[in-house]
Amino acid sequence: MLREAQRRRLIGLEMAEALTRWGVHVTVVEMMPHILPGLFDEEVAAYLTRYIHSQGVDIMVGSRVTEIVGNDEGNVTKVMTSNTEIPSDIVLIAIGVRPNTKLAREAGLEIGKTGGIAVNEYLQTSDPDIYAGGDCVENVHLITGEKVFVPLGSTANKHGRIIANNIMGYKEKFKGVLGTGVVKVFGYNVGKTGLTEFQAREAGFDVVTTLCPATDNAHYYPTHKAVLLKLIADRKTKKVLGLQAAGLGETVKRVDVVATALMFGATVEDLPALDLGYAPPYSTAVDISAHAANVLRNKIDGVAKALTPMEVKRKIDGGDDFIWLDVRTTAEFKKERIEDPRIKLIPLGMLRQRLNELPRDKEIITFCKLSLRGYEAQTILDGEGYQDVKFMDGGLDAWPYGVADDAAASKPLLGESTISQKAA
Amino acid sequence: MLREAQRRRLIGLEMAEALTRWGVHVTVVEMMPHILPGLFDEEVAAYLTRYIHSQGVDIMVGSRVTEIVGNDEGNVTKVMTSNTEIPSDIVLIAIGVRPNTKLAREAGLEIGKTGGIAVNEYLQTSDPDIYAGGDCVENVHLITGEKVFVPLGSTANKHGRIIANNIMGYKEKFKGVLGTGVVKVFGYNVGKTGLTEFQAREAGFDVVTTLCPATDNAHYYPTHKAVLLKLIADRKTKKVLGLQAAGLGETVKRVDVVATALMFGATVEDLPALDLGYAPPYSTAVDISAHAANVLRNKIDGVAKALTPMEVKRKIDGGDDFIWLDVRTTAEFKKERIEDPRIKLIPLGMLRQRLNELPRDKEIITFCKLSLRGYEAQTILDGEGYQDVKFMDGGLDAWPYGVADDAAASKPLLGESTISQKAA
Repeated sequence: MLREAQRRRLIGLEMAEALTRWGVHVTVVEMMPHILPGLFDEEVAAYLTRYIHSQGVDIMVGSRVTEIVGNDEGNVTKVMTSNTEIPSDIVLIAIGVRPNTKLAREAGLEIGKTGGIAVNEYLQTSDPDIYAGGDCVENVHLITGEKVFVPLGSTANKHGRIIANNIMGYKEKFKGVLGTGVVKVFGYNVGKTGLTEFQAREAGFDVVTTLCPATDNAHYYPTHKAVLLKLIADRKTKKVLGLQAAGLGETVKRVDVVATALMFGATVEDLPALDLGYAPPYSTAVDISAHAANVLRNKIDGVAKALTPMEVKRKIDGGDDFIWLDVRTTAEFKKERIEDPRIKLIPLGMLRQRLNELPRDKEIITFCKLSLRGYEAQTILDGEGYQDVKFMDGGLDAWPYGVADDAAASKPLLGESTISQKAA
Repeated sequence: MLREAQRRRLIGLEMAEALTRWGVHVTVVEMMPHILPGLFDEEVAAYLTRYIHSQGVDIMVGSRVTEIVGNDEGNVTKVMTSNTEIPSDIVLIAIGVRPNTKLAREAGLEIGKTGGIAVNEYLQTSDPDIYAGGDCVENVHLITGEKVFVPLGSTANKHGRIIANNIMGYKEKFKGVLGTGVVKVFGYNVGKTGLTEFQAREAGFDVVTTLCPATDNAHYYPTHKAVLLKLIADRKTKKVLGLQAAGLGETVKRVDVVATALMFGATVEDLPALDLGYAPPYSTAVDISAHAANVLRNKIDGVAKALTPMEVKRKIDGGDDFIWLDVRTTAEFKKERIEDPRIKLIPLGMLRQRLNELPRDKEIITFCKLSLRGYEAQTILDGEGYQDVKFMDGGLDAWPYGVADDAAASKPLLGESTISQKAA
């Protein structure tokens, strides 16, 4: 949590876009296992990575820059990383920000453990006659109660008004932040509020998550576009903990809705009850944020049982034996599919007739394109008395580890070895 | 309140757009004093009317259809209204909806006074073994506690899940609605949540409002577009009561944020504290919903003193004597201005030097383009000891009663006599 700001790297990706639009070939070198680690968990980062990659940018994750090499004229020639070298004409370093607290330190003011100036809820420093706000102070995270350093223009503006009010005797408190962040990356609208799954687990929550690939408005309305949401809640209290979203479609509105709900401690039961604006150009009749919350409710109630793509991948990497049940149509399967010996295709409409093909003593993981039919398959098999059935969260649309299709061989998406092929 | 649904007429305007795009000349005849009376108060309706009018649609408000006249071949030839006649080839009647409760009535179920089927919070009808949901039932309005009839697909979908849960023994309540509604009209994004000022006054609240013309995202970002927000709160409790929004820019996100806040009983102090997503493509550093709430806080605190355009218009119609102080630049004034003998131009930067031109015993109403400078002028004059100074809410951008500019004579926007000139 403490290093959230340093891990954001929003401007790095904005620059990658700007340079690409100018015709510059860009390689992003990220030390962490995936891009935007302060904003996203692995699956949403992978979804975004796939898109950025399609725009001509190479992304090398889990890769540490060890040296920037120049020539005798003082120009950069290449970047050495922990596992390769990249010929380069320009190197742009976007490694996050640290607050400039020199003045405050020299004045003897207390500096917090995040590195930002320590302030109380009235934004007074350790000297009550000196107020501080903006990108140099630390804030309270409203979900964890911890101090965080998340410098943002929106927060700085809030600070300004509150400090002015307090100087004038109005006594106003700044309650804190949710770590909300949004950014436009090529055409993708990208955002997060609250905690990521990683952050929520670090903070000790009993985490339940869902991945929802969806369209941002009615599927019959011509402007609808794809998005991926990841909603996170606490199983015990049912409180919403955070949302991540990315896609060509409208995601920022959903981030703002969940950010607003988080300020009031909303549960997964509150989100579907919201009376949000519905018309086909703007949303689906059940808004996708409500849909995601309903999936979490079903999971908490034990009706929906799921594994995340990452959990399925770990089982595969560990050599687990299970039936990986694709319940899409044969036509969909031919067009695009996961290539793995565990895969078995039984279209949902045939499932009840073909139960004899599914042993009852084996783990079954169902999926489809979005895992709506995957979930239905799970409930059908549950109803038939199968004991160990789960669906794969987010279906093929959220599966980041490569699919085979008519046009090409397998297209893996995560892992430096494959993503960075063009660069290496 | 009870007739909100009947007063919405969303689909009528959607059809006006669709027909106009097909090259059909459309005249909208509205019995009420302005369009969308269930969604909007007069000023926001006027702002939208001005735009629809610019798209080639004639709008006649305060005009009752008295007869639809046909010829011997059974074709429509003209529409007679309370004050004119309109030659017509097609007449489309969009006068709202009434629930079809025949089946329920015949079954002896209780019908509410709104005309919808009466249900309790579990969506049980007066026969507890019969549930009802969707467009035929009435709902509770979450702000007034009154029964309302607001049929919407989003609400119907919520009902469906709750009824299914209750049939299966989950015991889930439907809390109610906020009357949220959004619609796309030509390029304008149009929406409302909670109560309009008219509805809030009817419900007995001590209403405070603000009109905020603004851009939907950062003014230096190329995609920014204009919007008008009207935010309404209760002066005593500081609770937000409703938002109306219209414009080419992003408004629906703000409607959803305020709808979410309303579900939790948010105050005008809560809105500016929200940690909404900020990046230049999506918002201003202080989001416009927070800005509107800050204006209301200033009004409630007595720092900002304002009259709405409607209140100013009523003073003019009543022959009141006051100084109508335009504090824009001379260049702005030349380009576009209100023509009225009360108007006096003193650019804000000159105000302190030219106080001698402003008598202290006369009412002064200040304004500029948005009334940001208008508000500053009010605070400057307050500081100088002037006793009766207010600014005009929303400035020239929200003034719907006609402005003069270099290109044309006065262009009034409200009142059938002028709006319907082309049609008459």
